[in-house]
Amino acid sequence: MELIINPNPANWVNLAQRPTVDAAQLQETVAAIFEAVKTDGDAAVKAFTLQFDKVDLDTLLVSDQSIQEAIATVPDDLKAAIQLAKSNIEAFHATQKEVPRIVETTPGVTCWRESRAIESVGIYIPGGTAPLFSTVLMLGIPATLAGCREIVLCSPPDAQGHINPVILYTAQLVGITAIYRVGGIQAIAAMTYGTESIAKVNKVFGPGNQYVTAAKQYAQQSGTAIDMPAGPSELLVIADDSAIPAFVASDLLSQLEHGTDSQVVLLCDSERMARETLAELEAQWVVLPRKKIIEHSLKNSKVMVFDDVETCLDFSNLYAPEHLILAVERAAERCAKVVNAGSVFLGNYSCESAGDYASGTNHTLPTNGYARSYSGVSVDSFIKKITFQSVTAQGLKNIGPAIELMAAAEQLEAHKNAVTLRLNHR
Amino acid sequence: MELIINPNPANWVNLAQRPTVDAAQLQETVAAIFEAVKTDGDAAVKAFTLQFDKVDLDTLLVSDQSIQEAIATVPDDLKAAIQLAKSNIEAFHATQKEVPRIVETTPGVTCWRESRAIESVGIYIPGGTAPLFSTVLMLGIPATLAGCREIVLCSPPDAQGHINPVILYTAQLVGITAIYRVGGIQAIAAMTYGTESIAKVNKVFGPGNQYVTAAKQYAQQSGTAIDMPAGPSELLVIADDSAIPAFVASDLLSQLEHGTDSQVVLLCDSERMARETLAELEAQWVVLPRKKIIEHSLKNSKVMVFDDVETCLDFSNLYAPEHLILAVERAAERCAKVVNAGSVFLGNYSCESAGDYASGTNHTLPTNGYARSYSGVSVDSFIKKITFQSVTAQGLKNIGPAIELMAAAEQLEAHKNAVTLRLNHR
Repeated sequence: MELIINPNPANWVNLAQRPTVDAAQLQETVAAIFEAVKTDGDAAVKAFTLQFDKVDLDTLLVSDQSIQEAIATVPDDLKAAIQLAKSNIEAFHATQKEVPRIVETTPGVTCWRESRAIESVGIYIPGGTAPLFSTVLMLGIPATLAGCREIVLCSPPDAQGHINPVILYTAQLVGITAIYRVGGIQAIAAMTYGTESIAKVNKVFGPGNQYVTAAKQYAQQSGTAIDMPAGPSELLVIADDSAIPAFVASDLLSQLEHGTDSQVVLLCDSERMARETLAELEAQWVVLPRKKIIEHSLKNSKVMVFDDVETCLDFSNLYAPEHLILAVERAAERCAKVVNAGSVFLGNYSCESAGDYASGTNHTLPTNGYARSYSGVSVDSFIKKITFQSVTAQGLKNIGPAIELMAAAEQLEAHKNAVTLRLNHR
Repeated sequence: MELIINPNPANWVNLAQRPTVDAAQLQETVAAIFEAVKTDGDAAVKAFTLQFDKVDLDTLLVSDQSIQEAIATVPDDLKAAIQLAKSNIEAFHATQKEVPRIVETTPGVTCWRESRAIESVGIYIPGGTAPLFSTVLMLGIPATLAGCREIVLCSPPDAQGHINPVILYTAQLVGITAIYRVGGIQAIAAMTYGTESIAKVNKVFGPGNQYVTAAKQYAQQSGTAIDMPAGPSELLVIADDSAIPAFVASDLLSQLEHGTDSQVVLLCDSERMARETLAELEAQWVVLPRKKIIEHSLKNSKVMVFDDVETCLDFSNLYAPEHLILAVERAAERCAKVVNAGSVFLGNYSCESAGDYASGTNHTLPTNGYARSYSGVSVDSFIKKITFQSVTAQGLKNIGPAIELMAAAEQLEAHKNAVTLRLNHR
């Protein structure tokens, strides 16, 4: 992990670069699978599942009986933990619902907007050794709070054709309406076009590897909305002398274990804190089961020392981290200075793991600098806001002449005429 | 304009199709221009401006002096009309700002979110014969309300190198920070990468022809956010016997004059209303200056008669119109039934022109069925919402054990360790 003391501001933009990922070469594969699923529906999905997941499925839908059987195998203490997380996530996301505010902009001209759930949404949950049931909470809870009518979940089957029981438990807990054992590009294609058994959805959510990412890009170009562009996960920590090096090191490691392409950035206002944290990191990482992954992701990572916390915040805003830990004195006061970040953790006890699982905030966040223009997932991600206006005859008298002048100046006579005709009526 | 009586529900999906537009063949042109602008900056932008706009420019930035000179030429009554529209648009959009709501999800665990303006945004305003200054209002006003630091506007120059004075007047009125006389693909490329004179922006907004649309797609794939996917403008009107055929016809025509690819759909609960509106439309369109355009766009358009207004609303929700006029009795009561639409106009005096210019709502809306998953432009489009969490030592005691269990079940030991280490501290 590179240590840089007081980098020249001219180099900041370079230091804020992410490891580059090129998804362009996957385009042809993605296009071919989408085309096959569009044409052959379930048959194509099953063929790709045999090819990629090495399992021959009769049905794609997970039956209620299988779900109930799986639920019985989940330990009670884990169920209780998931319920606690659900309760916190619900409490926070419930505050995101908007009450319509009606405004009379001119006498007789009333405007407001109302939220409507996106009717059908799809959630992708990756497979692999670890069952990412926490993401089922993070996407399923705002979807049900928003009131989405169909909430479809796709996740790849294991060699026996099963989805992990904890994923199934969490899915039924949050109100997923249908679960399909389908993964990869074919899952995204099935939700984009619909098949005999899988519903076409209006928006696709969820993390995934480079294939899933490329498939979501393709889905977006085909007219299906997606949650946000994807990129490797990342954490930036600002630590002053009030920070505890062992805590900071543990947070950096929790980010680094995600994948070989993860990235962490540590910013300190003293070389001592930087060096002590690096020493702690060395001591902690060797005992972790994912130390091989961490060995790789450490190479993408940096420690920088700046003159003061203010300058650290300036760099952080340029970098626009997915996760930002403010392990500094008066952290709450510093919040106003944070301009670009996905989710922010204040003080020594707000570890990233808290937000990943159970504080209540969402863990689906903008990576790769997208925090400059995108928000993380929230109830907003599952709704549209429709504007309404009600203009009375008197209201149109008040604004009509202005509309006539403006429409004429834009050479849109029919726009003008729609007003003129009404003003002249009777 | 095709008249269909009581279409079979099995045909509804086909009837809700839009005219197809294929932007794929423009990809190579777009990629070449983006590459040139990325490499050669202003020189490339100027070369493309000479090639496409037939004007050789010294500078791209419009000077303050040119702006002031242009403003002096705008008639006072038009200025007053634009100011009235601005006042209404501001009043409505000001209601969209969110106040942070702080929630303690568990004792010692506090979560909230705060809005931050996207720091730098770009607004594209097309050129051509009609100066679309109303779009400057619709994009510039929410940008300034959000607090965006840089609000760049690009619009193509005419043969003399000028931008229309009304666009310049409106731009300075709403607080645009820099105006560039650059259009087409090269304008979007310049805002995506930045050049010597044009700032790189975080998000690009605005309408445009197929070239601009393809360029915005390319920008999005290159990491710059865009307002929404584009498509031809469209209007759906539901009219019962309380509607006035002449008014309805004038609204359909105001939509049809936008372009040859515009589309209107009229839904009635009686054949009488359908036929009377068609007769009014015939009478009105022949006298309009854009009748040639309307002759084309009428071919994309349909009139359908259903049994009742409820069924009309069902079809409308399937179609998901950009603009929806409810020229029906008890229109306000029907609003709850509207699920998919961009902006809704209630009653006989809420013509689409009102929302296009001056009621207060935004006219940048989702087309092509995107209203199923996207909202129109609002202050939300110019901000990100950052989540914050503050967890005390006691708070972590309360949620820590749940996090440890969940992290272990996801095989993320470093995530677990970040909590364990803190719980064991001292």
